Amino acid sequence: MAPRFTDHIKSLPAFVPFVGPEAMERMSGRPFRARIGANESVFGPSPKAVAAMNRAAEEVWKYADPENHDLRLALAEFLPVNADEVVVGEGIDGLLGLAVRLFVEKGVKVVMPQGAYPTFAYHVDGAAGSLVRVPYVDDREPIAELLAAAREHDAAIIYLSNPDNPMGTWWDGDAVNRMIGELPEGCMLFLDEAYGEFAPRGVLPAIDTANPMVLRFRTFSKAYGMAGARIGYAIGGRAVIAAINKIRNHYGVNNVGQAGALAALRDQEWLEQVRARVARGRERIYAIAEANGLAAIPSATNFVTLDCGGDFARAKGVLDALIADGIFVRMPFAAPGNRCIRIGVGTDAELDLFAEALPRALATTE
Amino acid sequence: MAPRFTDHIKSLPAFVPFVGPEAMERMSGRPFRARIGANESVFGPSPKAVAAMNRAAEEVWKYADPENHDLRLALAEFLPVNADEVVVGEGIDGLLGLAVRLFVEKGVKVVMPQGAYPTFAYHVDGAAGSLVRVPYVDDREPIAELLAAAREHDAAIIYLSNPDNPMGTWWDGDAVNRMIGELPEGCMLFLDEAYGEFAPRGVLPAIDTANPMVLRFRTFSKAYGMAGARIGYAIGGRAVIAAINKIRNHYGVNNVGQAGALAALRDQEWLEQVRARVARGRERIYAIAEANGLAAIPSATNFVTLDCGGDFARAKGVLDALIADGIFVRMPFAAPGNRCIRIGVGTDAELDLFAEALPRALATTE
Repeated sequence: MAPRFTDHIKSLPAFVPFVGPEAMERMSGRPFRARIGANESVFGPSPKAVAAMNRAAEEVWKYADPENHDLRLALAEFLPVNADEVVVGEGIDGLLGLAVRLFVEKGVKVVMPQGAYPTFAYHVDGAAGSLVRVPYVDDREPIAELLAAAREHDAAIIYLSNPDNPMGTWWDGDAVNRMIGELPEGCMLFLDEAYGEFAPRGVLPAIDTANPMVLRFRTFSKAYGMAGARIGYAIGGRAVIAAINKIRNHYGVNNVGQAGALAALRDQEWLEQVRARVARGRERIYAIAEANGLAAIPSATNFVTLDCGGDFARAKGVLDALIADGIFVRMPFAAPGNRCIRIGVGTDAELDLFAEALPRALATTE
Repeated sequence: MAPRFTDHIKSLPAFVPFVGPEAMERMSGRPFRARIGANESVFGPSPKAVAAMNRAAEEVWKYADPENHDLRLALAEFLPVNADEVVVGEGIDGLLGLAVRLFVEKGVKVVMPQGAYPTFAYHVDGAAGSLVRVPYVDDREPIAELLAAAREHDAAIIYLSNPDNPMGTWWDGDAVNRMIGELPEGCMLFLDEAYGEFAPRGVLPAIDTANPMVLRFRTFSKAYGMAGARIGYAIGGRAVIAAINKIRNHYGVNNVGQAGALAALRDQEWLEQVRARVARGRERIYAIAEANGLAAIPSATNFVTLDCGGDFARAKGVLDALIADGIFVRMPFAAPGNRCIRIGVGTDAELDLFAEALPRALATTE
């Protein structure tokens, strides 16, 4: 007897979007000295969020409120939107998986920048959709080309992250608004704003939930420093939010993380301080790059992507040397970004280690 | 412009498997005096689990290990199975959603007891499957009838929970093993053992991961007292576990909950104590039922289902009266179980409140 998987499941490869740093440590047998590869916030969450999580841990025997009421209403007030225009989920990853299933089935086309967030592509594959990938232009997610591809392929979704990961580049809100105005009939924009809190004013366009074709994704994983808590949210027209509610796992969002996120949202002072520290860290990475003769791509995120001045092999060599040296970093997956390595803003001590390791890594690959 | 939902999404109703007690409190404007309706463990998790969660909260800025390595290996050792025969997920609910998608698409039939876990049905609906529902027999999930329906409808999955929710009844492991031996060709058994830790010895059949047709689901939500942490696991043949890995959200399981679950698993002494307290609580509910002239259905879980001695209207009347009186309980959704109400083992104080409220509730509905 054999399990009768669907044809689609049989056709899917065994694929993990990202191998975790812990797995790399287990393989090498050595812990990393610097963990600056997953765009986490080394500055951590607000102490008030930690305190709230500790209080919530005492009550963890209760299921979380399936409506995620308190956090959802606080978000609605903060943004501001109506309470039925926002949904809380298990990180942006979880929400992307659900949102993809609203529009994608076999034969449906989806457009994304080639080398943008692999987990989005993973969810489209999981829903049996067909991906159309469009290369970055000038290290930015190529708005005009994404729109053209969506028109050509009658796409159901365009994915755009702004600011972008893995290049750290961005469009200003006016450009995104123009893109929204030019979306082909019936095509959704999935606007991933995971790094939005790091961006300069004006990068996030004003929220307009009257437009049902835009679904925006935000998270407590990045600037709020709570990646392990798995709390993200999506903002959109009420029809799309209601559709997510038709398939989401109503009891899926852990209550400790929700309590932490609520406290984190209320501590905007902490967020401001994190933003300032991240800005200083970016400057430090720019300076390290310059000292080593590498071009840093200006970033609106908590990481900086460095052009290693060669091709994929050169960048991969530098990456491997850094990893062998105990510095956990990553690199873009696709050309032309894969001439680069991506360095997260770490603690001062971690950036010291990186500054010390980079010349060695460059030397071994020359 | 309108979002271009798939036909399936358009056809799905807006349905929430369970309205949460918090929503009921918001509607009534009054908090419940006793929270004994969601089969939670009022005795809470091991203090060691709480301590582990507090430590993990400090590190919440890190993404969890996408392989859930530490918890998964501890489970593999505990069960015991091989490490690639178990997968950790966002509660049994989350894992059921994924596992359903491995086998179910439009046109695929799935068999379950009528009135068994609504969230399983919700996930089958979400995957566009067709449910065949078989009534309980003698308040038990009807093994022979489930098998017959699966044969008749060429079902891809049979769902069985053992011990059962919402009746609290059970089959011994031999009966389940006989069922496994009689599964129709190509039909999976999804064996939900959420309440397994409460059951008498012999109710959980020995684990046999050599049989690829059985997928078992367990959780830290019930006996381990961590419902809000959202940590469940599935045990099965490696082909099925590998298939779940093809579509699961690799970074989806929060790290605070994982740390808590690992500590909880290691504190079997606490679990033993919870089991004893639950057994005493069941006896107390039996006694309250007897004192009120109601038949209690013997239970292998942390709740007891009480036959209100009439039809659905009678039971619903009792339920509504209890809820209006501040006692949060639930009742089975389908006949013939819906002549009953379901009472969770609460604290002594909560069961005192229930004992006091029940005669009033019965009186109002006579």
